[in-house]
Amino acid sequence: MVDILHRVGVHAAAPAAVYDALTTVDGLAGWWTEDTAARGDAASAGGVVEFRFPPVGGFDMEVVEATPPERLRWRVVDGPPEWVGTTVDWDLHQDGDWTIVRFAHRGWAEPGDFMHHCSTKWGSFLMSLKSLVENGAGAPAPRDVQISDWH
Amino acid sequence: MVDILHRVGVHAAAPAAVYDALTTVDGLAGWWTEDTAARGDAASAGGVVEFRFPPVGGFDMEVVEATPPERLRWRVVDGPPEWVGTTVDWDLHQDGDWTIVRFAHRGWAEPGDFMHHCSTKWGSFLMSLKSLVENGAGAPAPRDVQISDWH
Repeated sequence: MVDILHRVGVHAAAPAAVYDALTTVDGLAGWWTEDTAARGDAASAGGVVEFRFPPVGGFDMEVVEATPPERLRWRVVDGPPEWVGTTVDWDLHQDGDWTIVRFAHRGWAEPGDFMHHCSTKWGSFLMSLKSLVENGAGAPAPRDVQISDWH
Repeated sequence: MVDILHRVGVHAAAPAAVYDALTTVDGLAGWWTEDTAARGDAASAGGVVEFRFPPVGGFDMEVVEATPPERLRWRVVDGPPEWVGTTVDWDLHQDGDWTIVRFAHRGWAEPGDFMHHCSTKWGSFLMSLKSLVENGAGAPAPRDVQISDWH
């Protein structure tokens, strides 16, 4: 098992503002992909959030734990086979003027090319989340930063 | 053991151009830190490259393997205790118009906050490497992109 881990800081923002960007369709569409929808409540255990990246597909995340404003866990219930069954953890805490975001995408079976790509791409999307909360302007798909031939 | 893994693509560039940015002081100073120096040859096994990030310190990397233009391995011989003894692998290959960079920083003892930070920061510096080779303009320290309170 190998994990994707990241840490970013969001300046002059409270954890609740970051938590909102992770648990509302409008928030998620502002930094990850504009094509985001929810079945049920994106902020409650049991809700499912559908992230799409036309034309290549996407991910369905079931909310497993939602403890505002500090902790959120998703489990991938549909998407590429490498992702299904993996989990994504968000831990937020305040440190002075900053909200610190600890991110972990765990449960990858193999450290292959796709995992390498997703690691860098998550880092780039976390910078988009930071920018959304700090400045009101993220870079969600399809306007996301291109990192390689795989976009 | 946990690893930091990344993958970026450098467009319209041959592997030799990326390899050059990884094995010359001028290249490394153009995307990682302007305060880069070498003891011996940065392009040959046995050479040591000194990366500094004033005022907080830095890293000394010994070149363990250098196989142009496709493979480079560093071992960290001085720096923060979490880094000493870890290895950094660069694998480059051409795929159409792209040079694909596979990066692995292996040998971390623990997945702590500092490792989370370094994972995101490496991703950001790989985008700086990509930009340097594609456009001639990287974002090395001290002009690097700030990702958090830890810079």
